[in-house]
Amino acid sequence: MSGNTFGKLFTVTTAGESHGPGLMAIVDGCPPGLPLAAEDLQQDLDRRKPGTSRHTTQRQEADEVEILSGVFEGITTGCPIGLLIRNTDQRSKDYSAIKDLFRPAHADYGYHHKYGLRDYRGGGRSSARETAMRVAAGAIAKKWLATQGIQVRGYMSQLGPIGIPFESWDEVHNNAFFSPCAGKVPELEAYMDQLRRDQDSVGAKITVVAEGVMPGLGEPVFDRLDAELAHALMSINAVKGVEIGDGFASVTQRGTEHRDEMTPEGFLSNHAGGILGGISSGQPIVAHIALKPTSSITVPGRTITVDGEPVEMITKGRHDPCVGIRATPIAEAMMALVLMDHCLRHRAQNADVQVSTPVLPQL
Amino acid sequence: MSGNTFGKLFTVTTAGESHGPGLMAIVDGCPPGLPLAAEDLQQDLDRRKPGTSRHTTQRQEADEVEILSGVFEGITTGCPIGLLIRNTDQRSKDYSAIKDLFRPAHADYGYHHKYGLRDYRGGGRSSARETAMRVAAGAIAKKWLATQGIQVRGYMSQLGPIGIPFESWDEVHNNAFFSPCAGKVPELEAYMDQLRRDQDSVGAKITVVAEGVMPGLGEPVFDRLDAELAHALMSINAVKGVEIGDGFASVTQRGTEHRDEMTPEGFLSNHAGGILGGISSGQPIVAHIALKPTSSITVPGRTITVDGEPVEMITKGRHDPCVGIRATPIAEAMMALVLMDHCLRHRAQNADVQVSTPVLPQL
Amino acid sequence: MSGNTFGKLFTVTTAGESHGPGLMAIVDGCPPGLPLAAEDLQQDLDRRKPGTSRHTTQRQEADEVEILSGVFEGITTGCPIGLLIRNTDQRSKDYSAIKDLFRPAHADYGYHHKYGLRDYRGGGRSSARETAMRVAAGAIAKKWLATQGIQVRGYMSQLGPIGIPFESWDEVHNNAFFSPCAGKVPELEAYMDQLRRDQDSVGAKITVVAEGVMPGLGEPVFDRLDAELAHALMSINAVKGVEIGDGFASVTQRGTEHRDEMTPEGFLSNHAGGILGGISSGQPIVAHIALKPTSSITVPGRTITVDGEPVEMITKGRHDPCVGIRATPIAEAMMALVLMDHCLRHRAQNADVQVSTPVLPQL
Amino acid sequence: MSGNTFGKLFTVTTAGESHGPGLMAIVDGCPPGLPLAAEDLQQDLDRRKPGTSRHTTQRQEADEVEILSGVFEGITTGCPIGLLIRNTDQRSKDYSAIKDLFRPAHADYGYHHKYGLRDYRGGGRSSARETAMRVAAGAIAKKWLATQGIQVRGYMSQLGPIGIPFESWDEVHNNAFFSPCAGKVPELEAYMDQLRRDQDSVGAKITVVAEGVMPGLGEPVFDRLDAELAHALMSINAVKGVEIGDGFASVTQRGTEHRDEMTPEGFLSNHAGGILGGISSGQPIVAHIALKPTSSITVPGRTITVDGEPVEMITKGRHDPCVGIRATPIAEAMMALVLMDHCLRHRAQNADVQVSTPVLPQL
Repeated sequence: MSGNTFGKLFTVTTAGESHGPGLMAIVDGCPPGLPLAAEDLQQDLDRRKPGTSRHTTQRQEADEVEILSGVFEGITTGCPIGLLIRNTDQRSKDYSAIKDLFRPAHADYGYHHKYGLRDYRGGGRSSARETAMRVAAGAIAKKWLATQGIQVRGYMSQLGPIGIPFESWDEVHNNAFFSPCAGKVPELEAYMDQLRRDQDSVGAKITVVAEGVMPGLGEPVFDRLDAELAHALMSINAVKGVEIGDGFASVTQRGTEHRDEMTPEGFLSNHAGGILGGISSGQPIVAHIALKPTSSITVPGRTITVDGEPVEMITKGRHDPCVGIRATPIAEAMMALVLMDHCLRHRAQNADVQVSTPVLPQL
Repeated sequence: MSGNTFGKLFTVTTAGESHGPGLMAIVDGCPPGLPLAAEDLQQDLDRRKPGTSRHTTQRQEADEVEILSGVFEGITTGCPIGLLIRNTDQRSKDYSAIKDLFRPAHADYGYHHKYGLRDYRGGGRSSARETAMRVAAGAIAKKWLATQGIQVRGYMSQLGPIGIPFESWDEVHNNAFFSPCAGKVPELEAYMDQLRRDQDSVGAKITVVAEGVMPGLGEPVFDRLDAELAHALMSINAVKGVEIGDGFASVTQRGTEHRDEMTPEGFLSNHAGGILGGISSGQPIVAHIALKPTSSITVPGRTITVDGEPVEMITKGRHDPCVGIRATPIAEAMMALVLMDHCLRHRAQNADVQVSTPVLPQL
Repeated sequence: MSGNTFGKLFTVTTAGESHGPGLMAIVDGCPPGLPLAAEDLQQDLDRRKPGTSRHTTQRQEADEVEILSGVFEGITTGCPIGLLIRNTDQRSKDYSAIKDLFRPAHADYGYHHKYGLRDYRGGGRSSARETAMRVAAGAIAKKWLATQGIQVRGYMSQLGPIGIPFESWDEVHNNAFFSPCAGKVPELEAYMDQLRRDQDSVGAKITVVAEGVMPGLGEPVFDRLDAELAHALMSINAVKGVEIGDGFASVTQRGTEHRDEMTPEGFLSNHAGGILGGISSGQPIVAHIALKPTSSITVPGRTITVDGEPVEMITKGRHDPCVGIRATPIAEAMMALVLMDHCLRHRAQNADVQVSTPVLPQL
Repeated sequence: MSGNTFGKLFTVTTAGESHGPGLMAIVDGCPPGLPLAAEDLQQDLDRRKPGTSRHTTQRQEADEVEILSGVFEGITTGCPIGLLIRNTDQRSKDYSAIKDLFRPAHADYGYHHKYGLRDYRGGGRSSARETAMRVAAGAIAKKWLATQGIQVRGYMSQLGPIGIPFESWDEVHNNAFFSPCAGKVPELEAYMDQLRRDQDSVGAKITVVAEGVMPGLGEPVFDRLDAELAHALMSINAVKGVEIGDGFASVTQRGTEHRDEMTPEGFLSNHAGGILGGISSGQPIVAHIALKPTSSITVPGRTITVDGEPVEMITKGRHDPCVGIRATPIAEAMMALVLMDHCLRHRAQNADVQVSTPVLPQL
C-alpha cells in the first residue's frame, strides 16, 4: 500500500487536499446490517470542524459529508462505503508568497524532496484538513463498536503549561477545549487569548479512553494492539509522542509498583493502560498523545527558498494557535479505527475460542 | 496479515517460542547483490543475548543463527532469506506452578482469553526471546542501509531514576548498560545490585538515532515515517511510550521555540527529530522509548487462576531485573527495519524525482 | 484488505453500486510528475460505456469522470488521485420483481448468503457498472506505462462460435466489437442480430497484449506476473478462464515444441506468452480470457425465492447480450494495473541491478 | 509484500532453494485448538515427493518436515507455525555447464535480468522443489477445512493427448498419475515410457474440486474467490491456464445453456463451477489448470549465454518428463490455502449474518 490506506480488514482509504475540489474516503470491510446515515458522521465532523470558537482557525467549512455507496435503505450492505466532502472555503488567495519557499517546521521541505513538486495551496495533502475523513470514517467505527459495547472518548489533558484534571465526561462537550474540567476553562481561555496576542502557538496533550473492550484484541508480535494504536495516533498531524497507560512514567517505576495485580473482584490498578503483551486485558484502554505547537505563526522566522536562498518569513492565513484543541475527535477516530479493525481480525482467527475464565473489571 | 509479519516491501516474518525447538524468520524483499554472512547477524545477536553480565537473565543461549536461503556465494540473491536459531537452554523445569494461573502484568491473561490455550513455558511466544529474530533481521537492514550512507545506533538514556547524559558513541559498547557515559556506569551498577537485593525490577529509557537519512522517506498520510517508527518501537515487549524528537516536551513548547528554522548552512535545531509532516527532513532521526519494569519479580503478588480463584505468587526462574538493558539492539533493529522498508517504498514511487534544492545538514 | 483494493504499490480502491449516487475510486502510489487530465481517462471510459451500438445495453451513461485530488496544475503530485463518476441513468423502475428472488447464474444468491442483505437495484455492487472505475484507473496506468515504453492493447478473438483472426490493431477501433479483422464484422453483426431475436446471450474470448515490457517484472513465488494477471483478469465480471501464451494448448504440446528457443537475434517463438518462471522475458505478454454468456436473458428460467419457493422468471431491463463486447477496455485496464504495480515493485527491490546481457526481441 | 507470502489472514510465507540447506515456511493465522502433527503434513508431502515412480525425477528427497513452533502439546496455539525441511540430495555436481547460459523456457533468463545474479544450482528458487512447502502448508489448511466440512481433492484429467474420464476418487491414489480412471493407466504408462525414449516432455491438465464449501466465500470486487483461485493456481510452476467450471467452453455457450437454474431441490447444473459473482454458491468448486511440458529435456536446443553468444545445449540432470504428474497435491494445496483464507476473511466481516434461506445442493 502507498500510505493512504489504514487498517487490515476494516480499511479506510482517503484522498484530497486542503484547497482541491474536495475530500474522499472509501471505507471497506464494514459488516453488513449496521444502520448508518450521513448524520451519524456529521456529528463528529462538526466537533472537529474549524471556526466553531475564537480559539481555532476561522476558515469556514460546513464539512458536509455525502455517503455515495455501501448503504442501502439506511443499512450497510457490506460493500465499500464511499464518502465525499466538497471543499467550500478555498479562498482564491495569492500563494506566490509561499510557493517557492519552505515554511519552517512544515511538511513543505519533505514533500518537495520526496515528490519534486507539491500542491502548496494551504499545505495541500499535508493540511490538517485531511483529518476530516478520518473523523468521518471513525464515526462509522464508533457506531459499530457501540454494538459491541465499546465506547471511545477523549479529552484534552493539558494545554501548554496548564494541566487539566479529569472530572467528568459530561463536561467535555460543554467547552471549546474538550476540557473535562469546567473550573479550568476560564484559565484556558485567558491563556489562548494571550497566546493570540503574542501571535504564537503552543502544544497540547490529549487523552483517549476506550471502555468495554473485551480481552483478546491485538495481533502479536508486530501488530500488537498498542503498536497499532501508536501507529494510528502518531499518524495524526503534529503528534510527537504516544503513551499507553503510564507511558514514560514507567521508566522510574518499580515492578512492585507498575504490575497490575489481579483479584477475583478485578484488577487492582491499570498502569498498563488496558494492554498486556500487546493484547487487550479488558480494562479501559488509555492512550495519551503529545501535539506540537502549530508551525504556522506570524512571528517572523528564518527559512530558505527552493533554490536554497535565505529568507525571513511569517505564515499568513488562517491557522489554529493550538492544533491540539481540535485533535480530540481525530484521536478518538483513530483509536476507533484500530479497535474495530482488531475486533474483526480477532474473530477471524479466534471466533471459535471459548474460555470459562471470568473477565475481570477494573476496581 | 496475522501479526507476525513486519514491513511492506522489506518484510520480516517471524515464528518461535521461548521453549520450543527454535526461532525462525523469513526476510523478504532484500535487494540482490548485498554481501551477507551469518557473522553479520551474529554481531548484533551477541549484543542482545542474555547472560553477558550479572545484570541480565542468566539463561545461556548462544543464539547461533543459520542462513538457510537467499544468499548464494556470500551475496544476497533477492530471494527470501531464511533464518534459523535453535533454542539450546530450555530447562526441563516443572511449569505446573504457572500453568493454571496468570502472572500479574504478563501476557498470560490476554493470550488465554485470545487463544483459549497457550504455551506457558517461559512465556511461549510472548517471551522477549522472540526479539532475537528482530535483531537478526535488523542486522540485514543495517548492513544494507550502510550502503546508502545510513547508520542506526542506540543507547540507554535513563535507568529508573538515573538520567544518562549522552557523551560518546564509543563508550556505548564499553559497558553492560549501553550507556554513552562512562562516568555513570558505577552508579548504574550500584543501582542494579541494590535492585536485585530488593528482588524488584525497574524501567528504562532508550534513545535510537539514525544518521545519514536522506529527505523524503515516509508515506503520508497513514504510513508517515514517524507513525511507522511508533508502530515498530511500540511492538517491542515492555515498551509503553514512544517519542519522536522532543516528544512530550512539545506540549509545553511555544511555536517560536519548537519550529526548526532553516538557513542555507543548515537547520538551526532538531526539535522535530528529523521528521516533518511524516517525512524525513535529512536531519538525524531521533526516537525515545519507555520500557516498563519487568513483571517477573520474586516479591509475592496477588493474581487469579484460570478458574478465577485468588492466589498469591512469585515469578521464579531466570529474568531480567531491567529489560531495558538488553533493549538497545532491539530498538536499533526495529528502526533499521522501518528505514529500509521506507527506502524501498520511496524509490518505488519516486525513483525519477530530481530536485536541485540543497539537502540541509543540522548545524 | 476487504476485497475492493487492487495492487500492492500502485493501488486502486473502488466503491459504488449500479443504481446508487455514483462510483468512486482512489488511485494511490502514482509517481509524481505525470501529466494527467480527466480527458485521458474519458477516452477509455467512452470505449467501455454502454449504448454506443445496438449490440450492447441501451442504458445511457455519460460516465463523466471528475478528478478530485492528486493532480495539481495538470501534473500528478504523488498524492492519492480521487475519481468520481455520478450515475445519471438509474431508472426509478420497480424492482419488486427481483427483490425477493435470485436471478439464475447471477451474483444474487451468493451476495444474499454472504451479506444477509443486498442492494438488488440493477445488481448493486455486482453490476458490470463497477468496471467503469477499473477502466478509469487503468487509463492512468496506461499513460504512465507509455512513459516506460509499454503499450497495452486488446481485441475480441472469438464471439460465440466465430473465431476472429488478428489482422491489425488499426481495425480494432473501427467496429463495435473490437474486432481486429474487418472482414469478420458483418458476420459478427448478423450473429448478434439473430441472438437478440432469440432473446439469448453468448460468450466471447478477449485477447490482451502488452508490448515493450522490459524483462524482470514479477515477484516469485506467489506474486509471479502471470499469477497476478490471472488474479486481475479473473476478477472481471463473467470471466471463467485465463490463459497466458499457449494456455491450455500447452497440455498436448511436447517440450521440443513449446520451449521458446533463443538466438542472439531474438526468441524464436513465444509459446510462453512473454512470461518465464513468473517473470517477464521481454517478449510481448499475451493473455486470453473467456467470458461466459450474460445471465440476464428474457428466456424464462427456473429459480427460487429468498424463502426457497420455486419460481419461473425472465430478467427484464437493459442488458448486454454479450458482455464480452465491452470487455476489451476492461481487460486492458486490468493488465495495465498489474504491469504498473509490478514496474514499481520491481524497481523498489532491484533499482540498482545492472546486467550487460542483451535484451532479446521476438523474431 | 515481496512475493513470497500468500494469503491475507491465513498467510503462508516460504523460503528456500533447490540446492540450498533447506526449505522454510511460516504459516500465520491458523486458529488455535487444531490438533496438528508433522505426520499430518508428511502424508501430502509424500504424495508430491519425487522418485516414487519411474515416471518422475529420480532425485531422492525424504522431504521430512519439522514443526518448529505454533503447536503445543499437539494442538495449534494460534501463534505462527514454523516449518523446516532440510535438503538431503543436492548432488555436488558441476554446474559450470549452465552457470553462464539460459536454459530455454526456464526461469533463468528472467531471474538474471531481474536480480542480476542467481543461484543456478538446480534452478535455485525457481525450482519446483519450492512447492514442497506449499503442500506442507496446504495440509494444515486441509485439516482445518475438514473441521468445517470442506474437502479438497484433485486428479489428472489429461496427460498430453490422452483425456482421462473421471471414474472414482478411490482410484486416484492407486496409480502414479493421480488418474481417477484405472482403465487408462496402462495407456498412460505406455505413453510415458515412449516419451522417455524420445527424451521429450509433455503437458498435462489437472482438475481440483472442493466439496462442502458453504455459500458466501469470496471478497468482491477484486478478491473474488475465482480471482484468488486463479492467482493461487497460476502461481504454480509451469501452469499456463486456469479455468473455473466450464472455463473456455463458456465462450461458445448460450445463456440458456450456461446459466445454472435453481429449484428447491437444488441447482440443476454447475457450469459456473461453484462460484457466482465471485462468491461461492455452495455447489462444488471446480477448477482446471493447464501445465506446460517440462523445459528440461535432453533434445538439444538453441539458446544464448549471459554474454549473448549463441550456444546449443541439452539440460542434463534429473527431471520430470511431465511435471503435471506431481502437480495434483500442489494444486489441492493452493486451493485449500485460498479457501481457508476466505473462510477466515468471510467470518471476520460477516460472522453475524444469518439468513433463513436454504442452502441448495447440486442435483
